[in-house]
Amino acid sequence: MRIARLSIEGPDGPEARIVAAADDLESPWIDVRTAERCRLMAQGATASAARRLSAALVPGSLAAALENGNAFTAAARAAVASAPPEAHVSADAARFLAPVDPPAYRDFMAFERHFRFSYDRVGTPVPDVLYELPVSYMGSAQAIIGPEDEVRWPAYSEHIDYELELGIVIGRGGRDLTPGRALEHVLGFTLLNDFSARDMQFREMAGRLGPSKGKHFATAVGPAIITVDAVDPAGLELSARINGEEWSRATSGSILWSVAELVAWASAGEPLVAGTLLGSGTVGGGTGFELNRRLASGDVVELEMAGLGVLRNRIVTASGGGWLPERKWPSLAVAGGDHD
Amino acid sequence: MRIARLSIEGPDGPEARIVAAADDLESPWIDVRTAERCRLMAQGATASAARRLSAALVPGSLAAALENGNAFTAAARAAVASAPPEAHVSADAARFLAPVDPPAYRDFMAFERHFRFSYDRVGTPVPDVLYELPVSYMGSAQAIIGPEDEVRWPAYSEHIDYELELGIVIGRGGRDLTPGRALEHVLGFTLLNDFSARDMQFREMAGRLGPSKGKHFATAVGPAIITVDAVDPAGLELSARINGEEWSRATSGSILWSVAELVAWASAGEPLVAGTLLGSGTVGGGTGFELNRRLASGDVVELEMAGLGVLRNRIVTASGGGWLPERKWPSLAVAGGDHD
Repeated sequence: MRIARLSIEGPDGPEARIVAAADDLESPWIDVRTAERCRLMAQGATASAARRLSAALVPGSLAAALENGNAFTAAARAAVASAPPEAHVSADAARFLAPVDPPAYRDFMAFERHFRFSYDRVGTPVPDVLYELPVSYMGSAQAIIGPEDEVRWPAYSEHIDYELELGIVIGRGGRDLTPGRALEHVLGFTLLNDFSARDMQFREMAGRLGPSKGKHFATAVGPAIITVDAVDPAGLELSARINGEEWSRATSGSILWSVAELVAWASAGEPLVAGTLLGSGTVGGGTGFELNRRLASGDVVELEMAGLGVLRNRIVTASGGGWLPERKWPSLAVAGGDHD
Repeated sequence: MRIARLSIEGPDGPEARIVAAADDLESPWIDVRTAERCRLMAQGATASAARRLSAALVPGSLAAALENGNAFTAAARAAVASAPPEAHVSADAARFLAPVDPPAYRDFMAFERHFRFSYDRVGTPVPDVLYELPVSYMGSAQAIIGPEDEVRWPAYSEHIDYELELGIVIGRGGRDLTPGRALEHVLGFTLLNDFSARDMQFREMAGRLGPSKGKHFATAVGPAIITVDAVDPAGLELSARINGEEWSRATSGSILWSVAELVAWASAGEPLVAGTLLGSGTVGGGTGFELNRRLASGDVVELEMAGLGVLRNRIVTASGGGWLPERKWPSLAVAGGDHD
């Protein structure tokens, strides 16, 4: 099954709708809430009760829908198996949103070829910890953008780059999972473009707290999610094109830490909640940085996964921009001193 | 005004309620939803309509309430100014929750004395970027715990520490704010204990993506929020006690980057949404690490802010624990090699 979200116009403005379709890319999209509403009415619910119940079970937020547990995924599968004509969606006319609105987004660095290449580029040995555990940082859940959304070039950067990644969407929450059971908590996979401001990212990383503003201006996700039962997590083909030219290509099978290991580690000692988005980290050669090539304003970045489709975003220069910090000067003269 | 959240038992289990009180610590807590429900009924709403409207305006989530904009804060101020007897809460019997359930949590490193001491402890020069901009990392919004909640010692660590910080709660969303206008977007201040697994944190930081599992097991917030109009952001007195013994004391005035600068930078080039929690970073001497002292399981950590109260948490050893990664071995023999 594939799951996506569309934006439709309603009397109160644009509204997000969850849609589902069979695995193959030719299958039509079904509006899951509409299908569920019709099913409830066929079982004797009044029109207003069916509207109320279907809206609670299939809200616009995929994260909230996943919190409903198996009741939601059962409704999505039932909609794909059999839906009345009014639940069929014309995807041509629709605008796709990010398929998930994650409550949390954690990005790993699990492709050895990527981190080996990147460390070689800056002439630094690979830290051993990258082989000891799946290292990650928390991204910004507010940074998520969807297909065709524009990436606004941040005022504090002169070097924007893309990152071709596999996105992993958590379907069912858990804690202290083992790799053997972790895939039971995965809804499916999507494409993830972890746009990066390389200059800011490297400045920040010298401060040893990891990248922050260098990452949080935009993370693109989509165009849909393909459920875990429909694919081989180690057999996914990913590629990236810039203005139509292929720059990157890799398979998910080259990952150092398996998807199951990433999910298990994300849940160790802390709650992993439904709707969480995990990034695999960039695939080998999946950035302009590794290729010594740069993006420019106006460039169109397309990520593609066979069987899933294309995630397309254009980079634009927005007018204005925020405050830039002015540097401070050390006020503590000696170690252990106190300027109070 | 002070704002907090209580847990009360209802027919469907525990329920979060937003309460408000005047600035002084002796003032009684008022249940804002109950006060609003009574106000609506006095204006002619039916009992069921008043219940429905007050629940929408004053939900259990403070983040969702703040999304309601000035309508929510006006209801809170009206409740504090005048509330019927049934809206008065007996705080003695109530359990306080984290006052905010943030959609995002970003932690800065803005106290020079803290980072100077910490770098001195490990014998490394302070990176210049800490003076160039307010460096931060994204914490986990799922890690938030409240007053009296237990901190579960994670299985992957042997060294748990506390961090005494000022918490800044965003009341109104914004983007590209200037320091001159930033405080208009701040609801108020709280205490924040950024519990840290030092061993895991330092291992992760060698991977250059910042701390992650070393931080995300628990972040305590509370016991309440004091609104920005009621205090001087540069005059807050913070202290930490371990099992009743004072280990740390500082004032917010020793901060290198002002609260307004932190808020402005958090909003540069990305959305800063209502309910976001920002941490100031640890105050000078606000960790056991700086004092060369360690916490043990069973220890009680109390943070205190004059005029706000005490945030108390006990560290406990939980049984079980999650999967621990087994190390991998490099598979790429030479730079630029490919093991596909």
